Parts: sequence; structure tokens; C-alpha cells
Amino acid sequence: MERHRIIIDTDPGQDDAVAILLALASPEEIEVLGITAVAGNVPLALTALNARKVCELAGRPDVKVFAGCDRPLGRELVTAEHVHGKTGLDGPVLPDPEMPLQDGHAVDFIIDTLRREPAGSVTLCPLGPLTNIAMAFEKAPDIMERVREIVLMGGAYFQVGNITPAAEFNIFVDPQAAKIVFASGVEITVMPLDVTHKALVTKARNDAFRAIGNRVGVAVAEMTDFFERFDKEKYGSEGAPLHDPCVTAYLIRPDLFAGRHINVEIETMSELTMGMTVADWWRVSGRAPNATFMGDVDADGFFTLLTERLARL
Amino acid sequence: MERHRIIIDTDPGQDDAVAILLALASPEEIEVLGITAVAGNVPLALTALNARKVCELAGRPDVKVFAGCDRPLGRELVTAEHVHGKTGLDGPVLPDPEMPLQDGHAVDFIIDTLRREPAGSVTLCPLGPLTNIAMAFEKAPDIMERVREIVLMGGAYFQVGNITPAAEFNIFVDPQAAKIVFASGVEITVMPLDVTHKALVTKARNDAFRAIGNRVGVAVAEMTDFFERFDKEKYGSEGAPLHDPCVTAYLIRPDLFAGRHINVEIETMSELTMGMTVADWWRVSGRAPNATFMGDVDADGFFTLLTERLARL
Amino acid sequence: MERHRIIIDTDPGQDDAVAILLALASPEEIEVLGITAVAGNVPLALTALNARKVCELAGRPDVKVFAGCDRPLGRELVTAEHVHGKTGLDGPVLPDPEMPLQDGHAVDFIIDTLRREPAGSVTLCPLGPLTNIAMAFEKAPDIMERVREIVLMGGAYFQVGNITPAAEFNIFVDPQAAKIVFASGVEITVMPLDVTHKALVTKARNDAFRAIGNRVGVAVAEMTDFFERFDKEKYGSEGAPLHDPCVTAYLIRPDLFAGRHINVEIETMSELTMGMTVADWWRVSGRAPNATFMGDVDADGFFTLLTERLARL
Amino acid sequence: MERHRIIIDTDPGQDDAVAILLALASPEEIEVLGITAVAGNVPLALTALNARKVCELAGRPDVKVFAGCDRPLGRELVTAEHVHGKTGLDGPVLPDPEMPLQDGHAVDFIIDTLRREPAGSVTLCPLGPLTNIAMAFEKAPDIMERVREIVLMGGAYFQVGNITPAAEFNIFVDPQAAKIVFASGVEITVMPLDVTHKALVTKARNDAFRAIGNRVGVAVAEMTDFFERFDKEKYGSEGAPLHDPCVTAYLIRPDLFAGRHINVEIETMSELTMGMTVADWWRVSGRAPNATFMGDVDADGFFTLLTERLARL
Repeated sequence: MERHRIIIDTDPGQDDAVAILLALASPEEIEVLGITAVAGNVPLALTALNARKVCELAGRPDVKVFAGCDRPLGRELVTAEHVHGKTGLDGPVLPDPEMPLQDGHAVDFIIDTLRREPAGSVTLCPLGPLTNIAMAFEKAPDIMERVREIVLMGGAYFQVGNITPAAEFNIFVDPQAAKIVFASGVEITVMPLDVTHKALVTKARNDAFRAIGNRVGVAVAEMTDFFERFDKEKYGSEGAPLHDPCVTAYLIRPDLFAGRHINVEIETMSELTMGMTVADWWRVSGRAPNATFMGDVDADGFFTLLTERLARL
Repeated sequence: MERHRIIIDTDPGQDDAVAILLALASPEEIEVLGITAVAGNVPLALTALNARKVCELAGRPDVKVFAGCDRPLGRELVTAEHVHGKTGLDGPVLPDPEMPLQDGHAVDFIIDTLRREPAGSVTLCPLGPLTNIAMAFEKAPDIMERVREIVLMGGAYFQVGNITPAAEFNIFVDPQAAKIVFASGVEITVMPLDVTHKALVTKARNDAFRAIGNRVGVAVAEMTDFFERFDKEKYGSEGAPLHDPCVTAYLIRPDLFAGRHINVEIETMSELTMGMTVADWWRVSGRAPNATFMGDVDADGFFTLLTERLARL
Repeated sequence: MERHRIIIDTDPGQDDAVAILLALASPEEIEVLGITAVAGNVPLALTALNARKVCELAGRPDVKVFAGCDRPLGRELVTAEHVHGKTGLDGPVLPDPEMPLQDGHAVDFIIDTLRREPAGSVTLCPLGPLTNIAMAFEKAPDIMERVREIVLMGGAYFQVGNITPAAEFNIFVDPQAAKIVFASGVEITVMPLDVTHKALVTKARNDAFRAIGNRVGVAVAEMTDFFERFDKEKYGSEGAPLHDPCVTAYLIRPDLFAGRHINVEIETMSELTMGMTVADWWRVSGRAPNATFMGDVDADGFFTLLTERLARL
Repeated sequence: MERHRIIIDTDPGQDDAVAILLALASPEEIEVLGITAVAGNVPLALTALNARKVCELAGRPDVKVFAGCDRPLGRELVTAEHVHGKTGLDGPVLPDPEMPLQDGHAVDFIIDTLRREPAGSVTLCPLGPLTNIAMAFEKAPDIMERVREIVLMGGAYFQVGNITPAAEFNIFVDPQAAKIVFASGVEITVMPLDVTHKALVTKARNDAFRAIGNRVGVAVAEMTDFFERFDKEKYGSEGAPLHDPCVTAYLIRPDLFAGRHINVEIETMSELTMGMTVADWWRVSGRAPNATFMGDVDADGFFTLLTERLARL
């Protein structure tokens, strides 16, 4: 298999952090061309900081990190400190990064990279609101046909909402951006709550992270310790869903996931259902497919992969 | 337990028919004050006809059947012949009814009955679009506080849509009516697709109907034989969901069902999600509960009840 | 000219009162078959009371007055005491009526009258929210083709809104009802704010009412004295628009009005523009005409007619 | 008076051209820092071409012209060749420009200029869809507080729509962008159709342009000759409204215009009223003012100014 050359667009977030760590731990399958931060789980200043903390935790201060948009398209920013804590990375104590933010705007880094690299060679991996991606597509529409694929975490169908009864957080924060991305014609693979709620960090799985024994394993265990309080209380589940690492795991082991190539529209016209990913799972709408919407994951395989890879860092 | 005194508002439909048969087979628990027909699965002329066919099949030509509204509030009628067949009751051959339609409008029968009977003594059981109920509430708001309870089939949450990716048929056909009913302040119990898709007519269950040996058992077996073609093809499931009988079964055996008392809003502002029952299952909205939204059913218990009762007719 | 046989559907309201008086003063052109009250400017109990006060003021206690719907379709009632005063008829002191409300519901009176009278012989004159009319059409769709014409006060195009920046009060109060009426296929003539804001009660015109010298003339002068405070303050105009009498004046002297046969759609999907009458005055939409939307009035002719007719009572 | 230092964001368009010419003819009052082209009346390639043609017509090949966004935010581009002709500048024959497009994106030019120039010193003058401006605000929110003022042509209130019954073309093409701009907190002055339809190019006024005798006067006369066909046919008016020059005329002679400081919201939730500028002219909404919405113009003064200035080129 050819190596995936990716840009990670992210709003870390503990699960974003794990997704990044998994990517950096997997150089045989994944080359990280850069990381672009966006406002989402916490404000931009924190996500841009957290992204660098995670790179340094992985021993990769060389990774280019850019700051992007600090607010969604035409809406007030909604954040999720109630899930992720005040810093967005509550749990472990990570040192302030020494590596600098890159000059330039995340949107321009995305545009320039896609224009510079061979067409069809770069994959975008959005783990937060789609503001940066939509802005890049809007500013430079020529890059859309140069994207190899978008693999993103966001949306929900059967597991309908987490931020509202109808909407998942990432899409809800910037529905207009999501609408632009889902209408772009670029190949999209979606990891919705339907998948991520099947990837729960049980105690045994978290123990396995900690048992790795390296700095990364302990930090990840501490992150999920913090992170899971919220979901355990809300859903009464045995652990928190580990949303974002599904994206990078998919790049390494697509066989762990199963879904359908269907139509997915983004709701932008009603406050009640704003940001819903209206996924035509049963193909009743007659609308043309525009995304592969995942519905299942081999959770044991996923956590085995994760633990094995984090041990390499 | 006090006997339920009910008005069944219905658009038969094979599963409506089974719901009615179950009610008429259970006089110890249920007294049917009347049946009101509404346009839905098929046009009003057919639902008013089918309701009477079903009463006669049950040996109950004395039941009062009224015709109601022939179209939803401010939308074109959408029907479901693709599911129920051209007559709405395809499957068995049932004779044309000899019993007449009652004079008067279904809406007035609902109003008059609620005004005549003791306050808090009459339960409404809508099995189709909520047009008649909403019209009665709108014309005579005084009756709302006299309703004991509404137990209805409609909506969906985790099993999101059957007519569109976001909406269940009954609510989709008349979202405005549903909005009026869900905002009425009347106690509402909802049997959504989430429940009814757990009440599948497997071959064994249908064989059990047929094995009853009476005219009703055979007719029900033939109805579900016809009805299930659609769902088996669409969902690849082992049988069709038997939606509407959940309503009348709940009156007899509420212990077979489990749900949550939550807020349920009806989407009326977006074509994409029109008619969605936005059910706040995880209580993230902060909106006040207005309905008991069922999520689970003891399917074996349900079918045992059904078979046992249909045998009495 | 054949006499207009009309049902006035109304929420008096000083200007409603004048519209009724004008009709009752014009027996050669108009036969009032009945008056149906609806909630609007003030709650139903008051509009049903006021309608009878006005009939008695006109010396016509024989007119049948029915109470109808006390709330719009699926929305909270919005009233306009800030314009019309607490009673809805603030200004003159009118005695409590001795004439009774008729038994039966306004909606049924509308239905029964249209079914009883020859098809095409009855005109509906709605002066308030369209709830009663929509309910009658919904309950008995057969009556729609029996209506001769609807002449209504409501909406706005160039004079955009009075209750919101986009909507006129009557339509805003019950947009769903308006949508049903405007989609009914019945011939509709609309008197929007565009017309009524050209029919201002200046001091001279009000003096002319008072100078009639009869009880009605004085009462009308007192009504408009009260009524105009609001508009004078808000618009800085020389007097208040006399909205509803445009409807009955049109029946007598259609030549006083000019408009266009165009498409008019009712906004029901956005809170911001809710209840707007989207009138395709410039015919840019390609949508089929469904209403004659008036845009101009010979104001002097209108007030001359009014004064001359009120003098007859 | 301090000189206005402006960026003209434009989609020429004959009336855009006249607005630019007026600015370039008025160096004492206006310094044009650059012109940014956007898709609107015609596609971006043509508006970027036309902007340069107009600069050269004015003898100003030194003006910096940048190309910006070629499509609105999340909607398909709608163009107006039916008004402006296939080239967007039909009418005069203007030579292909020799001056080049600047390198770099219009959005970045706007951002860089606002960051480089003293805060509060640069005025933005959008004459087309607001895509470029919204993108700049979204990419670099820090610049919003550095804008002196936005003076734009767009929207309508009493003269409701030109592209739909509810919406004016510039706002309709990119309602999301307009929403971002109107929510930005930047001081906004709006020249809506209400104003521009009072600035009609009558035959006498066009003759006056031609009578100037210079190359510019003849070209402008030829532009308006072409341009006015559409409006004359549609509105039956004596000439076409000269929309965009109202913006640059306002910078020179604000006393020619009168309006109100009110709340203006952009409709984005309903297809029927999409892109409407809901202007709270009568202050009924209670929403805070965010724009000065012009309602009147001294048309003779405006055309006198225009003719006098164009003569200088």
C-alpha cells in the first residue's frame, strides 16, 4: 500500500491527541505533512497550543503546525469544555511546547500544499469543525480536484446527536462549512458517532494504554481517564467513545471499518436540527451518494492497533 | 386495572388492522368508543372503508366508524401504496363492509365524545397522521385537558426515518398536526420505529398467526405476508415491523415496553428534515419533557399477547 | 350588479368594526349571511363580544354571530392591544350586546352555509387571521370550489411589515392558516398594507365621520381617534390607515382599487420572515398567479363612500 | 474632509464600472487602494477583466486589481447576464486591458491592506456579492476592527426584490457572506434598491453623459443605453436605476442621501425569502441597529455630480 500523505485539521481535544499520536506512530503508513488547528472543542489559541504539545509528546517537534480559523462561518463559536476540560487536554500534565507555530494561515498551508504536491496524493483528515477545509475550498476551488480523499470524524445517524438531539458537535459548530465540504465532490469517508460509540475506552483498554509504560501510554491513559467521565455519566456506558483516532486508524487498517456509500446532506435551514448529517442509510431519498458513511468498527482490532502503535513512540 | 376507553384514529393499513383487531379482541382491558379514519397510508375513502372491513372481520359491525380529514394541514397528501398495496389492506380478500360510515365528521366525534365522557376517561390512539387529532384540538381546545392520554405510533429516533432519511411516515405526512399535538400538554406515549423495528414478524411468528386457525388469524397472516415484502427487501431484516399494534398492546401490557420521559419536538422548518421527531433521548437540550418516548419492547411477549388475543376473535 | 352574499370573518378591532358597519349600511350591494369571530387583535371572547356590539350599533341584532377558533394553527396567539386597546374596541363606549352568540362553531357555520347556498354564490371576507377559513377548508375540502371569492385584508409588499419587519399582523398571527388559504385554488383578492396605508384617516376625514351626526358616525370617529394614536406615533403619518373597510368597500366599488394578478406565497419556514406575503409583484419568480394583490386605492373616493354609507345607519 | 482611502470590491457590471469611474475621477475625496473582483453579475474571469478595462478607460492602469472568490459560500453561483449582457459590460467596445492582474488573492489583499494601513483609515466599498469581504473577515477576524466603514450596494426594503420577490441580487447571490458582514460589528452604510430606484438614468441624464464628449462620457452613455433595456421593460420606468455609483457618490457627497440607523438581518433559513435584507425600518423588532440603511437620494444632485466628475477623466 502506498503511504498516506496527510494534513490533520484538528481542535485537540484528548481524542484528537490520540488520533495525532497514532498517525505519528505509524510512519510506514502515514506521512504527516502538517497539522492545522481550528477552533472547536476549545478556542483556537488552545487548539494551536495543544497540537504542538502533542507533537512534542510524540517526540516530533519538527511537525509543522499552523493556526487557522478562530470561528465558524457566520455563527458564534460553540466549545466543549464540559467534555474536554478547560485546556481541551485536561488529564495529563504536558509541558508548554518549545516548537513554534508556523507563520502563515492554516487555510493557505492547505491550499499551498495541495497545489505543490502531486494531484491526488494528499489526504485531508479533519477531526474538528470543517471551517479551515471549507475556507480553503472556497478561496482556492482548484484544489478540490487535487485532494485524494477526506477522512473525517463528524456526524451521526443512528446515534443521533451529542451536542443537540439532532447533531454531532463537529458538524454542529460549523454547518455551513460542512455543507461546503460535503458538496465539494471530493471523496469523503465519515466516521460518525455510530462508529465511535462502538469504540469505547473500557477500563481494560485504558489499563492497556497505561501498561505500555512509555510516556505516551501514560498520557493517553490520563487523557481518557479525564475524557470518559463525561460520557460515562451521560450515556451510562462502560467508557468514553474514542472518536478521532478512528480517522487515522482507518488509514492504517481500513478493514476494521464497515459502512455504506450513500448521500449525506447537512442541515442548515432549521435551528432545531441545525448541523444534522442527514445520512440516507436506507437509500430512500433518491439523492446521489457523496460519502462513505461508516457504521461499524471492529473495536477490539481498533484498540489492539492503537495500543501496539502507541507503544512505538 | 381500569378499562381503557379509547378512540382509534387510523389509516388502515395492515398493521393498523392488527392494532384494531387486538383492541377488539381485548374487551376486558379496552373499550373502543369509536374509530376515526384519516388519510395516510392510502386516501381517506379507502381508510374509511378498510376500518369497517376490519371491524366486520372482528365480528364487530356495531363499532362506530367516522371519516375525518382527507389531507394534511397545508401540505399535499403523501401515501404509501408501495408498502401497503393499492387498497391499503392488500393480502387477504376481505368482503366489502355492510356496516355504514357514521354521519358526521371524525373531528366532531372526537370533540363530542371527549366533552360527553367524564374528563380524564378517554384515551386517543392515533395510528396514522395526526390531522384529525390536531383539528379537534384546534377547533375545541377545551377537550385537551379532558384527554386521559394519547398513545400513538409515529416518529423515530435511533431508527431515524422510513419515508425520508430523517422522518417516519405518520409524522412526515402531517408535521404541522404533529406539532400541535406534541405542544398540546396532553400526556403522550410514543411508539416510534425504534420500538416497532424490534417487533418483527418473523416466519415463526407469522406461522403462529396462521396456526390460530380462525378467520382472523389467517387474514392477519396474509396481511403480514404482503406487508413484509417491503421491509425485508429494504432492510434485509427477517420480517416486517408490526408498527401499530404496539399502541394497543401497550394499553393491555404496558410492562412489555420501556422508554424515557423526554422532550420531543417536531421539525416543521426545513424540507430536509421535515417531520422529524427530534427526541431528546440524552436530555441535552434543556427543553421540558412532553412525551414518553418508547425505545424497547419485549418482542416475544408482544407476539405471544397478539397471537393469544387474536385467537379469541 | 348581483348582490354580494358574504360571511365576514373578523377579530374586531376598530377597523373591523368600520368594515362591518359599511357592509351593514349597504344592503343593496351586500347581504351579510353571518359574522364569524376569530382570535386576533384581541382574544376570541372579546372579538365575539365586539362583533355583536357592532351589529347592535348598526341596529342589526338579527345578524348571526358565531365564535370560532381561539388560537392559530400550531403557534401561540399574538394579540395587538397596543394598537386596539384592552377591549379591542377602545374609543367609544358601546353597551354590552343583548343579542346572543349563535350555537355552533364558526367553522361549521362557514361549512354549512357554503354547502347550503348555491355553489359560487358566497364570498368570504376575512378581516383577521385566517384560522377559521383554513379550518373550514381543511375539515370540508368540498366547500373550496363552492366559494365565489375571498376578499381579505392582510399582507404587505412594498409597505413591508407592521408586526415584524417582514410581516403584516393578520398573516403573521397564523401563517399556516394563510398558507392553506393561499394554496386553496379559491379566487383571492388581497388588501395589503400597501393599499391600506394609502387610506389614512386624516383629521378632515374623521371630522366628516363625526359630522354625520348619527350614533354610528360619532362612534366611528371615536374609534379612529383612539386607533390612530398608534400609527401617528409610529409612522409619523397624518392619520391611521383604515385597513379592513377596504374589503367591504371593494365589494361595493371595486373601481376604487387597483392591483395585479400575481403569485403570493406565505413564508412559514423562517422565524425571521415568518408570515411574510411574498408577493411576486414584478413577476420574477415564474410561479403561477393565485391572488389579485391590490396596490392602490382612490382614498378620497373610499372615504366619501364610507361617510355617505355610514350616514345611512 | 479627510480623503477616503478605499478598496472597491466589485463584479462589473456597467453600474459597477460607473462607480469605479466616479471614484477614479475624484482624487480629492477618494484614494483607491485597490480593486478586488468577485463573481456575481458575471463569472470571476470576466469581472476581473472588466475591472481592468474600466481602469484603463479611466487612464489609470496603475490601479491594483486582484481576483477573488469565484463562487459564493456554499451555494451555486447565480449570474445576471440577462441584465448586463454576456460580457458583463455590454454596450461600449472597450479594448482588452494591457495592465495585469496582481498576483495574490483578493482576500489576502484586503487582509494585508487593512493590517498595513492605520487602523480606522480604510473603507470597504462592496458593489457585488459579499464573498470576498466575508472571507477576509473569516480568515482574519482581527481586521474587522480596523475597517473604517463599509459602504455597500445591496438589499432592498420597500422596493423588495429584483432577483426574487424578496431579495436583491447582490445579497441573494451570497446570503451567508452577507450574514457574516452584517454581523461583523463594522459600521455599515447600505445603498439598497430603495435608493437606487430613485436614481434612474432618464434620456436627459444619459444625453448629459454623452454630451461630456470625452471617451469616458460616451462609454458610460453606451453602457447605460444597454443596461436600461432590462429595467425599462420590467418596471416600465423611464430609465434604469444606476445602483453602484451611489456608493462612491456617498463618499463624496453624503448629504445627497438620507436613511435610518436600524437593524438589518439577512435571511438564510428559507428558500422562499433567501437573501432578503430584513430591514427594521419602523423599529418594531427591538433588535439593535447595525447599519445605516439609506432610503432616499437627491437624484438630480447625484447625476449632476456624476456628470461633472466623469468630465474630468
